Amino acid sequence: MVEVPLTQAQLARQIAVALGEEPADVVIRGGRVFDLVTGELRRADVAIAGERIVGLGEGYEAREVVEAEGLTLVPGFVDAHCHIESSLVAPYAWEEAVLMRGTVAAVCDPHELANVCGTEAIDFFRRSAEGMVMHLQVQASSCVPALPSEEAGAKLDAEALAPYAKAGLSLAEMMNVPGVLGRAPDVLAKLAAFSGQPIDGHAPCLAGRALDGYLAAGIANDHECSTVDEALEKLRRGMTLFLRAGSVGRDLARLAPILTLTHCDHLCLCTDDRDPLDIREHGHMDAAIRQAIALGCDPLAVYRAASLTPARHFGWRQRGLVAPGYAADIVLVSDLAECRVAGVLCRGRIVDPERFEARPPCPVPEAFHGSVKMREVSAADFAPPAPGPVIGVREGSLLTDAVAWPANPAGSDLAVAALIERHGGSGRIGRAWVTGFGLKHGALASTVGHDSHNLCVVGTSPEEMALAANTVRASGGGFAVVIEGRVAASLPLPVGGLMSERPAAEVADTLATLRAAAKETGSVLENPFLSLAFLPLPVIPAARLTLGGFQAV
Amino acid sequence: MVEVPLTQAQLARQIAVALGEEPADVVIRGGRVFDLVTGELRRADVAIAGERIVGLGEGYEAREVVEAEGLTLVPGFVDAHCHIESSLVAPYAWEEAVLMRGTVAAVCDPHELANVCGTEAIDFFRRSAEGMVMHLQVQASSCVPALPSEEAGAKLDAEALAPYAKAGLSLAEMMNVPGVLGRAPDVLAKLAAFSGQPIDGHAPCLAGRALDGYLAAGIANDHECSTVDEALEKLRRGMTLFLRAGSVGRDLARLAPILTLTHCDHLCLCTDDRDPLDIREHGHMDAAIRQAIALGCDPLAVYRAASLTPARHFGWRQRGLVAPGYAADIVLVSDLAECRVAGVLCRGRIVDPERFEARPPCPVPEAFHGSVKMREVSAADFAPPAPGPVIGVREGSLLTDAVAWPANPAGSDLAVAALIERHGGSGRIGRAWVTGFGLKHGALASTVGHDSHNLCVVGTSPEEMALAANTVRASGGGFAVVIEGRVAASLPLPVGGLMSERPAAEVADTLATLRAAAKETGSVLENPFLSLAFLPLPVIPAARLTLGGFQAV
Repeated sequence: MVEVPLTQAQLARQIAVALGEEPADVVIRGGRVFDLVTGELRRADVAIAGERIVGLGEGYEAREVVEAEGLTLVPGFVDAHCHIESSLVAPYAWEEAVLMRGTVAAVCDPHELANVCGTEAIDFFRRSAEGMVMHLQVQASSCVPALPSEEAGAKLDAEALAPYAKAGLSLAEMMNVPGVLGRAPDVLAKLAAFSGQPIDGHAPCLAGRALDGYLAAGIANDHECSTVDEALEKLRRGMTLFLRAGSVGRDLARLAPILTLTHCDHLCLCTDDRDPLDIREHGHMDAAIRQAIALGCDPLAVYRAASLTPARHFGWRQRGLVAPGYAADIVLVSDLAECRVAGVLCRGRIVDPERFEARPPCPVPEAFHGSVKMREVSAADFAPPAPGPVIGVREGSLLTDAVAWPANPAGSDLAVAALIERHGGSGRIGRAWVTGFGLKHGALASTVGHDSHNLCVVGTSPEEMALAANTVRASGGGFAVVIEGRVAASLPLPVGGLMSERPAAEVADTLATLRAAAKETGSVLENPFLSLAFLPLPVIPAARLTLGGFQAV
Repeated sequence: MVEVPLTQAQLARQIAVALGEEPADVVIRGGRVFDLVTGELRRADVAIAGERIVGLGEGYEAREVVEAEGLTLVPGFVDAHCHIESSLVAPYAWEEAVLMRGTVAAVCDPHELANVCGTEAIDFFRRSAEGMVMHLQVQASSCVPALPSEEAGAKLDAEALAPYAKAGLSLAEMMNVPGVLGRAPDVLAKLAAFSGQPIDGHAPCLAGRALDGYLAAGIANDHECSTVDEALEKLRRGMTLFLRAGSVGRDLARLAPILTLTHCDHLCLCTDDRDPLDIREHGHMDAAIRQAIALGCDPLAVYRAASLTPARHFGWRQRGLVAPGYAADIVLVSDLAECRVAGVLCRGRIVDPERFEARPPCPVPEAFHGSVKMREVSAADFAPPAPGPVIGVREGSLLTDAVAWPANPAGSDLAVAALIERHGGSGRIGRAWVTGFGLKHGALASTVGHDSHNLCVVGTSPEEMALAANTVRASGGGFAVVIEGRVAASLPLPVGGLMSERPAAEVADTLATLRAAAKETGSVLENPFLSLAFLPLPVIPAARLTLGGFQAV
C-alpha cells in the first residue's frame, strides 16, 4: 500500500476543515475515542475531510453526520497476514464479509492461487485491490512452490518476482527455510531483490542459531509461533510477531500471555487462513480482538496489535490512530471488550452495500478455470499403504505429529489419506495413514491442498475416496463429502480449484451443509476440510502427506 | 538515511556467520544485552558480520573480539532532531565529540547554515554525511527564512527544495505555523512535495483547533513542548514527541513524567541545540538518558526513546535493537542507569580515532566564509529605546515572556539588546529592552542569532555593545564578551558566522573562557550566548527581538 502523496488542494481543504473554516465532509458525533497512545477513553466528535481525520473536538459543521452516541471509536483493524483464498471467495466477495467486521486493511499473500496460476494470480489480486473499498496490500509470493521438491501449478523464480520488487511490493512469507539457511542462489536473489522492505517470515519451531541464520537474511516477522517459549525467543531476537487467529491455526489462545503492554509494539494480530463460515459465525479481526481480551489481555495492547502496530510495521505513516492527519478508517464498537462492531468508516465514509456496488468490475480471468488437470481415478488408486508411520492431526493447529502404528488398529480412527497431482504434470498419487480426523466411514476430498493445491482425499474405503475425488474433479475443483457410497454434499470451487465466484454468504451456507455432512463421517474436527487441506503443507512440522506418501518434516 | 539494499553475497555471508559456519568479523564477548522488546537483561555474546548483528549466543569464532565483561550492551543512540551548527563546529568535528558518547545516528536539519548560505549548506551537510562514521540523516530545511518577514542570508522556496524531495530527503521542522494555518501557497507546495515522508514539526504552545489544522497538513512530530499538559495534548492527537535535552531548551526535566512505558513508542529524545561545552562536560544523548532515569523514568522507556522509537519513526528498518539482522550500532555501558559509555560500535566496528582519520576529506566551501556583510557600528547605533515592553528571558527554555516596564528600573537587570542585519541587505538595527540575563556591566555579541543569524548584542552601555559587535564582525562572525571597555574574550566562528573549523575540544576550551568572562558581566544564565542567540527567534512565543525592535509573538 504505497501512500498516495496529498496535493496542495487536499492539504488546504484539510487545514480549513480542521480550523472550522469550512464544513467537514463527515462528522462522527457523540462517541468516545479510544486513544491508543495514552490508553484513555475520551468524549470527542471526529471531523473528516476527504479520506483523513482532521479534528477531534466538538461543534463541527458537516455535510454528513454519523451519530455515535454510546459508541466507542477505534482505529480500523489491520490483518497483518492473510491468504484471501482461504475464505473460498474472490477478493471483492471477501471484502464484503470482512470490512463490515472492521478490517479496513490487510496484507495479503496470493500464495495459494499463485501456486496454481502463477504471476497472473498476483496481478489479479493487485487489480482487485485497486477497486476495493478497503486497503489491500498485495505481496509478492516468495515460495511458489513452497519447496523445490513440490509439484505445483507454477514456479516463480527470482526473475519472475523482480518486476514486483521494482513496483514496490514486499516479499511475502519466506517459508523455504532450508533454502535460506542453505543459501540457495534463487532464494538469495529474491531476498536481495526485496531487501530494504519488510520481508515476511514463516519459521515454525525455528530456534537458536538456525533462527539467527534466518534473521540474518533480513526477515522481519513471523506468524507461526505455537508456544509462549517460541514466541519469547523470537521477540528477544527482534522479530515482530503476528499472533494468528485462523480457522485451523488458532495460535492466539496459546500466545495470549505474551500480548502485554510491554511487547505490544512488536505484536500484530492476523488471520492467515480463515474460512467464510468462521468469518460469518465468529468474525474476522474483531473475533481475534474479542478472544484476546476474553483471555485476559489488556485491551490497550490488543487494539494496538490490531491496528497501530501493523501499520507501523509495514511503514504506513499516519494510519492506526484516531487522530488528526491520520487515515479516516474508523470502527465504531458498541462494546470495547466484546468488540461488537456497530459501524465502519473506510476512506472517510461509512461502509454500506452501495459502496461495494460502486466498485469497478474485476472479473476472474478465464485462465483460472479448468485447473484440475488429472485423469479420473478409481478405487485401485487408493489401496491402503502398508502399516507404518501415521500422520497425527491436531485440532486448532497446523502442526502435525509423526505417530507410531497403533497397537490396536481396529480400535483407532486410522484412515487413509491420498494426494493426487492435479496440475497436468506427473499424475502421481501419494498415500499415507492419518489419525485425528475421527472418521468412521465415508470420505472427504478437496482441491485445496496447501500449498501446491494438489487434490487431497481422506477416507475409510477406496471406493468412496475415488468418488469424492472424481466429484471435485468434475466441478473444476472444490470440496466433497461422500457417505455410504453417495455424494452427501459438495462445494464447487472453480477458480483455480480454490475459490468460488459466489458471494461469501452463499459459500458459507454450502460450507455449513458440508460440515454437517462431514460430521456424519464421524469427524471430530471442527473444520475437517481445512485440516485436510493443510495435510500436504511441506513447510510445517512434523509429518506430512506428499506425492511420495508419508514424510517426516 | 536511505537504507542500502543488501547484496546476495552479503546475505550469504551473514547467514553463514549466524550459523557458525564462518568466523564472525567481530564478537562482543561476555556482556549482557539490554533487550528493549522484553526489558530483560540477558547474558549473550554478539556476533557481527559486516555492518549487521547476526547472532546472540555463545561460542562464536571471530577475527576480532571486543571484551565486554561487566558491561551492558544497548542499541546506539539516535538524536531525533538536531542542528549541528549549535555545536559551533563542522559535522566531522561534531561527530568526533558525540559518537564517542554513543550517538550513532542523528537526524539533522542544516537550518542555521542554510539561513546564511542557502542550499549549499544542505549540500555540504550531505557530503559530510557520506564521509562520516556515524549515520547522519540530513533533512531539507523547510523554513529559510523562518518566517517571510525575516531578513536572512538566503530564501529557500518550494522550487529550491523540490530536488531534495526527489532525492528522498524528509522535510525538517515546519516552523512557519502561520504559513501552514493560512495555507500560504509556497508552504503548501513544500508540504505536498514532501508528503508521504515524515514531516517534522515545530509547534510551541499550539493547541486545540490550531493544532489540528497544523496536523491536518501531515506534520508528524514536535520537539517544542514545554509542559506536561502541552505534551499530553499532542500525544492524544497522534504526534510523536521529541523530548529535548538541549543547552538552552532543557525541556526533558519538565516532561519526564510523560516518559512512561505506555507512551514511549511515541517519544524520542533529541538535543536540538547543544553546545560543545555541554557535550564535553555533560554528554550528548547519554546525558539525556542519564537525566531521564535520574528523574525517575523507567530505563526501558528511556532507552527505547533513545534508539528504537526514533528508528521506527523515521522508517529505519532493523535499527534500534541489539538483535540478529539489525544494524551493528551498539553502545557498551558500564552502568545502565548512569549511562556511562565504555565503548561504541558503529557500522559493526569499534569506534576509535583511526576511523575518524580515515574519513575522506570534506573541506568547508570557501563561500561559507566572509558572511558578516555589515558596516562597522558605533555607540550611536545602540541608543536605549524608550521605556516599553521588555523581553523576559527564561533559564533553560526557548520561551520568553513579554514583561511590563518595571516600577523600579534602576533596581532591575534591564539591559538593551540589539539585532543588526548582517547579510548585506537592509542594514537595519532593531533594539529592545531585555531582562533575565542579570547583566550588571559590559556587553555580549553573537553572529549566531536564530534563525536568520543576524548579529545580536546585549549590553549595559552603547560603547561596549558597539565594541562587542565590531569584534565579532572583524573575525568573520563569532562570540565576544566586552567588560570595562575591553574585549575580555572572543570565539571566532568564521564558517557562516556560526561554526569554527577547529576541533570540538578547542572550541569548548574557548567557550569555557567566554562563559567565565560572561559571568564577570553579572550574567546569571548558565549559557548566556545561547540565550542571546535565541532572542531573535521569531517562531517561539512570547516576546522577540526583531530588526524592528520588540515584538510580541
